[in-house]
Amino acid sequence: MIHLDPQAYLDLVRRAVAEDVGPGDVTSSAIVPAGATATAEILAKSACVVAGLPVAAAVFSEVDRSVTCHPRVADGTRILAGAVLADVAGPAAAVLTAERTALNFLQHLSGIATLTRRCVDAAGGRATILDTRKTIPGLRALAKYAVRCGGGTNHRAGLYDAILIKDNHIRLAGGVAEAVRRARTDRASLPIEVEAQSLADVREALDAGADVIMLDNLSEAEMRQAVAITGGRAKIEVSGGVTPDRLPAIVALGVDYISIGALTHSAPAADISLEIHVDAGPAAS
Amino acid sequence: MIHLDPQAYLDLVRRAVAEDVGPGDVTSSAIVPAGATATAEILAKSACVVAGLPVAAAVFSEVDRSVTCHPRVADGTRILAGAVLADVAGPAAAVLTAERTALNFLQHLSGIATLTRRCVDAAGGRATILDTRKTIPGLRALAKYAVRCGGGTNHRAGLYDAILIKDNHIRLAGGVAEAVRRARTDRASLPIEVEAQSLADVREALDAGADVIMLDNLSEAEMRQAVAITGGRAKIEVSGGVTPDRLPAIVALGVDYISIGALTHSAPAADISLEIHVDAGPAAS
Amino acid sequence: MIHLDPQAYLDLVRRAVAEDVGPGDVTSSAIVPAGATATAEILAKSACVVAGLPVAAAVFSEVDRSVTCHPRVADGTRILAGAVLADVAGPAAAVLTAERTALNFLQHLSGIATLTRRCVDAAGGRATILDTRKTIPGLRALAKYAVRCGGGTNHRAGLYDAILIKDNHIRLAGGVAEAVRRARTDRASLPIEVEAQSLADVREALDAGADVIMLDNLSEAEMRQAVAITGGRAKIEVSGGVTPDRLPAIVALGVDYISIGALTHSAPAADISLEIHVDAGPAAS
Amino acid sequence: MIHLDPQAYLDLVRRAVAEDVGPGDVTSSAIVPAGATATAEILAKSACVVAGLPVAAAVFSEVDRSVTCHPRVADGTRILAGAVLADVAGPAAAVLTAERTALNFLQHLSGIATLTRRCVDAAGGRATILDTRKTIPGLRALAKYAVRCGGGTNHRAGLYDAILIKDNHIRLAGGVAEAVRRARTDRASLPIEVEAQSLADVREALDAGADVIMLDNLSEAEMRQAVAITGGRAKIEVSGGVTPDRLPAIVALGVDYISIGALTHSAPAADISLEIHVDAGPAAS
Amino acid sequence: MIHLDPQAYLDLVRRAVAEDVGPGDVTSSAIVPAGATATAEILAKSACVVAGLPVAAAVFSEVDRSVTCHPRVADGTRILAGAVLADVAGPAAAVLTAERTALNFLQHLSGIATLTRRCVDAAGGRATILDTRKTIPGLRALAKYAVRCGGGTNHRAGLYDAILIKDNHIRLAGGVAEAVRRARTDRASLPIEVEAQSLADVREALDAGADVIMLDNLSEAEMRQAVAITGGRAKIEVSGGVTPDRLPAIVALGVDYISIGALTHSAPAADISLEIHVDAGPAAS
Amino acid sequence: MIHLDPQAYLDLVRRAVAEDVGPGDVTSSAIVPAGATATAEILAKSACVVAGLPVAAAVFSEVDRSVTCHPRVADGTRILAGAVLADVAGPAAAVLTAERTALNFLQHLSGIATLTRRCVDAAGGRATILDTRKTIPGLRALAKYAVRCGGGTNHRAGLYDAILIKDNHIRLAGGVAEAVRRARTDRASLPIEVEAQSLADVREALDAGADVIMLDNLSEAEMRQAVAITGGRAKIEVSGGVTPDRLPAIVALGVDYISIGALTHSAPAADISLEIHVDAGPAAS
Repeated sequence: MIHLDPQAYLDLVRRAVAEDVGPGDVTSSAIVPAGATATAEILAKSACVVAGLPVAAAVFSEVDRSVTCHPRVADGTRILAGAVLADVAGPAAAVLTAERTALNFLQHLSGIATLTRRCVDAAGGRATILDTRKTIPGLRALAKYAVRCGGGTNHRAGLYDAILIKDNHIRLAGGVAEAVRRARTDRASLPIEVEAQSLADVREALDAGADVIMLDNLSEAEMRQAVAITGGRAKIEVSGGVTPDRLPAIVALGVDYISIGALTHSAPAADISLEIHVDAGPAAS
Repeated sequence: MIHLDPQAYLDLVRRAVAEDVGPGDVTSSAIVPAGATATAEILAKSACVVAGLPVAAAVFSEVDRSVTCHPRVADGTRILAGAVLADVAGPAAAVLTAERTALNFLQHLSGIATLTRRCVDAAGGRATILDTRKTIPGLRALAKYAVRCGGGTNHRAGLYDAILIKDNHIRLAGGVAEAVRRARTDRASLPIEVEAQSLADVREALDAGADVIMLDNLSEAEMRQAVAITGGRAKIEVSGGVTPDRLPAIVALGVDYISIGALTHSAPAADISLEIHVDAGPAAS
Repeated sequence: MIHLDPQAYLDLVRRAVAEDVGPGDVTSSAIVPAGATATAEILAKSACVVAGLPVAAAVFSEVDRSVTCHPRVADGTRILAGAVLADVAGPAAAVLTAERTALNFLQHLSGIATLTRRCVDAAGGRATILDTRKTIPGLRALAKYAVRCGGGTNHRAGLYDAILIKDNHIRLAGGVAEAVRRARTDRASLPIEVEAQSLADVREALDAGADVIMLDNLSEAEMRQAVAITGGRAKIEVSGGVTPDRLPAIVALGVDYISIGALTHSAPAADISLEIHVDAGPAAS
Repeated sequence: MIHLDPQAYLDLVRRAVAEDVGPGDVTSSAIVPAGATATAEILAKSACVVAGLPVAAAVFSEVDRSVTCHPRVADGTRILAGAVLADVAGPAAAVLTAERTALNFLQHLSGIATLTRRCVDAAGGRATILDTRKTIPGLRALAKYAVRCGGGTNHRAGLYDAILIKDNHIRLAGGVAEAVRRARTDRASLPIEVEAQSLADVREALDAGADVIMLDNLSEAEMRQAVAITGGRAKIEVSGGVTPDRLPAIVALGVDYISIGALTHSAPAADISLEIHVDAGPAAS
Repeated sequence: MIHLDPQAYLDLVRRAVAEDVGPGDVTSSAIVPAGATATAEILAKSACVVAGLPVAAAVFSEVDRSVTCHPRVADGTRILAGAVLADVAGPAAAVLTAERTALNFLQHLSGIATLTRRCVDAAGGRATILDTRKTIPGLRALAKYAVRCGGGTNHRAGLYDAILIKDNHIRLAGGVAEAVRRARTDRASLPIEVEAQSLADVREALDAGADVIMLDNLSEAEMRQAVAITGGRAKIEVSGGVTPDRLPAIVALGVDYISIGALTHSAPAADISLEIHVDAGPAAS
Repeated sequence: MIHLDPQAYLDLVRRAVAEDVGPGDVTSSAIVPAGATATAEILAKSACVVAGLPVAAAVFSEVDRSVTCHPRVADGTRILAGAVLADVAGPAAAVLTAERTALNFLQHLSGIATLTRRCVDAAGGRATILDTRKTIPGLRALAKYAVRCGGGTNHRAGLYDAILIKDNHIRLAGGVAEAVRRARTDRASLPIEVEAQSLADVREALDAGADVIMLDNLSEAEMRQAVAITGGRAKIEVSGGVTPDRLPAIVALGVDYISIGALTHSAPAADISLEIHVDAGPAAS
C-alpha cells in the first residue's frame, strides 16, 4: 500500500471544508429533513488511476463523524469508466454538504496519478519518472502522494531534503567545483545534484563529484553525449518540457531519471462523481 | 483593478513557504555568501493572461521582508511571450529560496486566467462565463480571483452564499415547488437557482419561481427549447462538459450563463519563469 | 446588500466561542435536560442601526450546527427599541451557551454602525464620513463592515492598500516632493495621500501632486483656506478629534472627507438582548 | 504587579499585526531609507489609567525583534495628560509600521482601566466592582486584565469556571431548588450564583443555598430588602444598567458586588499617541 | 484550588486528539453500535499525587461534547493504589476513542506531581523546591501546573519573565557588575538572579546586588560557605543534579531554593487506567 | 538514515520557541551586544543514543535563520559521554535564546532512543520491540521517530491506521468472532489484532482469524502456552509492564512482539548540554 500520513492532510481537509461550507450549507439546511439519510457511490466517469480515497473519506468525516466512506479499491488502482470507487452512507444533509469538497480532492489527485501513470508506462521501466517542486501551493504532500499512486517516484520534498545546485548557485560560488565543495562540507550526508546547461557543465559537474547531473533543456543529441561522458559515474536526470510523446525517445538514450513538472501543475482533473440515493427516513413520513 | 483581499491569501502564503522551505534551504545556505544580492525578472515564456502578482510579491516578502517585487503590469493583462511581468530585488539567498513558491502561485493562477479569457472571448460577450465550486482545495478565493482576472464572473463562493437546489434536494422535499418554497421561507434574501435535467424540470422550476434554472447536461436542442419556455422569466445557466469549442454554438442559443468547472480544476499552468542576476556583493570581493 | 465575506470572520467566531466556553458550559451541562429545545428572539432594547447578524448566526452554528438563526432585517437597517432582529431555534443548551458571544458581536458592531449613522446624518451628504485604522485588534474587517452598515465609507484597510505619507515619512525623505516621488515610483497604481499640519504643508502637498491632502488638527479657518488653496486639484480630508456636534460646521467648509477614529475605537455597545423560551421537550416530561 | 500571562496575547498580537500590515507597509517601504532609525515616546494626551504596555511592547517586537519598548510606568498607574508612558527605539520603518497596532491595544485597554478606576473610586471601597462576560470577542483575557489594572475584580472568565443559574436554567430544572441541586451534584467544587428577578426569587435562592445572588434590574428599594432578607447568608451582586453616577447610592445599600458590562463593552478609548523622532542615519548622509 | 487556566491547554488538547484519532478510530467505528453507552472509572493503579483531571475532562469533551467526566478528588491530592479519581459517562465509542489521550495527559502530569511531592517532602519545608525550564516542548504551562500540584514552586515561566544571568552573559558584558547593571537599567521591575560557578562568583554577584544567586554544581562545602558569605543579603538557589536522596543534606545547609530539572524532564508516568463498562443500549437489543 | 518528515515537527518547534521566549528573552536583550557572535558544541554528558538533531537544528533556525547547527553524528548513533553531537554558530543572543528549547527536544528524544536501544539489545534480536500510543500529547510523531532511532519498531501511529480489538469492543460486539467479522467487513485492508486476557481468549482470537494476538498481562507460563496454541497461525504480542530485566525471559518464550509503554512515557531525559563560546565581535571592541 502506498504510504500517506493522515496527519499530513487533516488540517487541509479542515480548511477546505471551512472554505466551502463557511457558516453553513444554506440549501441543505433549508430543504433536507433532519432525519433523512443517504447512501452514495463514488463513480469514475472515465478511466483513470485513483488517488485520494482516504482524503475524501476524511472530508466526509470532518463534516459529520457519522458518515462512513468505504473504498472498494486501493489508491493507485487503474479504474475503468463506470467503476465504483467507494460507498458512502450517513445523514443526507452531511453527504450533500461534503460531496463537492471530497470530489475536489479526488479529482485533482486522481488527475495527477493518471497523468503520472501514462508517463511511467511510456517510459516502459527504462527510466524513473520523477515529479518536481512545481506543485499547487499547500498541496505538496498530497500531490507527491498522487505521483506515487501513478507509479512515479518523488524527487526532493522541498528545499530542505536534498542539494540541487543551479546556475545561480554556481555563479555565486565562483564555479561548479567550489559550489559542490561547499555543499559537501555543509551537508555531508545529502546527495548532491548539479544542473547542467551544456556538455561543458556536465564535465565540470562530473569532475566536481556530483551524484546526479540534471540536463536542463538539452537537445536529445546532447543528452546522448552526456550519458556517454558520465559513463555511469553519476546519474543523469533530464528536465524541462518533457511530454509523454517524447518519453520513448528520451528513455532510449539511457538516462536515469526524467522529471516532469506537468505531473503536478497541469494534470487535468479526473472525471469522478458522486451518485447519491436519499431517503427521507421514518421521521419524515 | 480587480479586487483581491490580501487577508485571503496571507495564511496560505505562509503555509506554502513552510511546506517548501521546511527547516531551511540547504543548497542556498551552504553556497550563497551572506552579503550577496540579486535582481530578477519574472518573465512570461508563452502568451498568457497574468494573475497572482500580488501573491507572488507576498511570497518574496514572507521569505524576507527586504525583498521587493514590483509588478510592471496589472493582474488581468494579456501578455505576450517574453514580456517581463515584475522586477524582483533583494538578498540573493532569499530570492532563490522564494522563487519556486512564487512561481507556483503565479503559474497556477495565470493558467486559470488564461483559460477563462479564452472562454470569455469565445462567448463573445453574448453569455456570461461562470466558474464553479470545483476548485483545488484551499485555493478557492485565489482561483475565483483568477477567473475574474480572465474576464469571467464568479458563481457562488461556497455553500453559504446562494441557494442551488439539485435533484436530491428536490427528491427530499417531495418536488421542486416544495423545495423552492422551503428555501424561500428559510432564506428570503438569497436568489434561488434550480437544477433541471429535462424540459419538464425546466417548466416545474419556472412555475416554482426559480430565479435561475441550471440546465444540467441537456442537448443543444433542449437548451434552445428551455430558452423558449422560460421566455426571460428566469435566467438560464448551462452546465456540464462545456469546452471552448462548443461555446459559440451554445451562446447562439440565447442562454444567460455558462458555467465551466475546467476553468479551475483543469487549466494547465502558464509558463512563467524567474530570470535571476546574482551579485556576490562587496563583502565577497 | 452590504458585502461581508464569511471567510473573514469564521476563524474569529471559532476563537470567540472557545474563549467563552472553554472546556464546557458548566451551568447548562449540569442543569439543561438533553432533549430540551428553545426558541429565542434577538431584540433591540433601544434604537440602533443593526450590524453583525450573519456573524451572530455563525456563532450559534459554531456551538451547534443544528441551531438556526434567521434575521428579520438586513444589516444596516435602523431599528426602533423593541424590534425583533432575528429568530433563533435549536437545542436549549446550545442556545444558552452561544447567547453571550453572539450578543457580544452584535452589540459591538451595531454600536459602531449606530455611531457612524449619526455622523453620516450629521454630515448631510455633503462630505463623506470615513473610518480609520483605529480599530480593536483582530476585528478590523468586521469593524469596517459595521461602518459600511452605518452608511460610512472605508478608508484604507491597512498599511498595504494605500499610500499615506505622514510627517515622519516627509522628514526621512527630505521633503514632501521627494516623499511623493518615491511613493509614485514604488507604487504607481496606488493613490497618494499626504498629511498636512499647516497651510504651507497643504501647498507643498499640492505641488507634489498628492491625490488627497489630510488636514491634521487644523482650525476651521485653516480648513476653509485649505479648500480655497487646493481649488479642487486634490481632495481634502479632515482628521483628528471630530465629534458629531462639530460635523455640520466642518461640512459647510466644503471638505471632501472627514475621518473619525471614534467610530471604531469608542462607539458604545448597542443595547441588544436575547429573549429565550425554553421547552424541556417530550423527553423530559 | 498585576499578572498577565504573555502566552494569553502573543497569538492575538501576531494576528493584529498581520491584519494591519498584510503583505507590507507600502508607504514606509517606499520612503524610509534602509538605515534610518527612530526613537519615540508613548504619550498620554489626557489623564487615564494605563493598561497594555507589555502588549504594546510585544507588537513592536513582533514587527521587528530589534525594536525596544521600555515602560516608564507600570500598568495600573494613573497618568496625567502629557506623561510619557514608554520609550521606543529601533529601525524607523519598523517603528512606523508597528505604531498604530501598538496604540490600538493601548488605547482600548487603557480606556477600560480608566472607566473601571472611575467606578471603583465611586464605590469607595464599600462594594467590589466586577466585570462581566460582555467583552469584545477575542480580547477576553486582555479586557479582564485591564479591569484589574483599573482596580476592578474579575467575575468568571467564561462559561467554564463558575456556575451562574439564570431564569431559563431555573425554568428547565423546574425551580431554583432543583437547579441548585443539579449544579451542586455535578460540580461540587464550584461556588453557585443564582439570578433573581424579584424578592421571591431572592428567598428561593437563599433557601436553595446559593453562594451569591445576582439582583437583575431590581429597584433600589428591592435591593435594600434583598440585603435585609439574605442577612449575610449569601453575597449580593447587583447587575444591569449601573452607571458611575448611580454607584454611591447603590453602594450605600450594603450590597457586596456590582457588575458593570460597560467596563468592557463601552469604555471610550484613552487618548494615547506616539511621538516619533526619526534619524536617517549615517547611511543616508 | 491550584490555578490552571483552561485557555492554556484547550489548543493542545485539540491537537493531541487529532494526532491520535486522525481521520477516525477505525476499530470503534467498525465495532461499536451507534446507541451503545459506557460508564467508566479513572483508577490509580499505584499511589501517586494526581494532576491533570480537568485536562482529561477536556479530552473527553473534545471527542464528544456529551461525555461527562466528573472528578472525585481535586488535583494535588495524594491517592492510594485503587482509588477512583473520576467518573466518566457517555457514548461508548467516544469514551473508547478518548481513553488513551486522556490517560496520556493524566499519567504524565501525575508523574510530575508525584516526583515533586517526593522532593518537597524530602525538603521538609526548610527549602523551596523549584522547577526549571527543562520541560517537554509544548507542555510548559501544564508541567508547571503539575509541579504546583505536587507542592513545588514555579521558577520563571520562560525567558520573558525573569532575569537569569549565566556565565556567557557575564563574559559578554565584561563582568558580573556590568551584566547586572545592564539588566537593572533595561528591566528595572524584574528581580535579578546570577549564576555562580565558584565562591568568587558568589562574592561578585553579591557585590553587584543580585537578588538571587544560583550555585551551579558547587560542592556541599562550597554551598555552606556561600550561605555564610551572603548572610541573607541575597537568596541562594542550588541547581544541578540534585536527587531526592541528596535533598536532606542540602536543605540542612540553609539554602533557600533547590531547582530540579528532573521534575519535568524525567518523572516516570504515574500508573493510571480507565475501567470501562459498556452497555450496548436499547437500540442494540 | 531513519526517516523523519520535517513537516511533522515544524509547527511544534514554532510553538515550543514561542512558549519559552514569549515576547522576548529579557536577559539576552539587556546584556548581549548587538554584534556579538557565538560558536557552541552540543555535548553528551553521559552515554546515550542520540535522537532529535534535526529538530534541535530547526529550533535554532526558528529563533534566527542565520544560526547554523551541523550534526557530527546521525540520529540513532550510540554516543559516549563527552562526545560532540553538533556544532552551532551564529549571533550570540540567538544561540543563548534557542539553547534550552533545542536541548529540551534533544534530551527527551535521546532519552527515548536510549531506553529503546537498551530494550532492543536485551531482546537480542529474537523478538521485535514495539512502542505504544502512550506518548506525551503533541509529540507522537517525534516520540515514534526516537523509538526507531533506538532500534525499536513502531506499533500503530494512532487509532486510524490499525485495528486493535480490546475487551470492551468484544463485549459490545457480543464476542470475538463477531468483532473480528465487523472489523474485517469494515476495513478489509487493515491487519487485525485482538487483545487476549486468557488462553481461552487466545483460542477464540485464533479461530476468529486474528492476524496478531496481544497477550495482556498474562503470566510467562501462559505466554508459553499461547505460543504453542497459535503455532505460528498468528503473531503473538506481549504487552503490559515489561521491563528490560524481564525481556530475556520473555523473549525466550518465542513471542513475536513485545510492546513497552515506558519507552515513550517514562524514559528519563538524556544528559546533553550546550557548551557556548561567545565573542563580543569587532563592534564591541
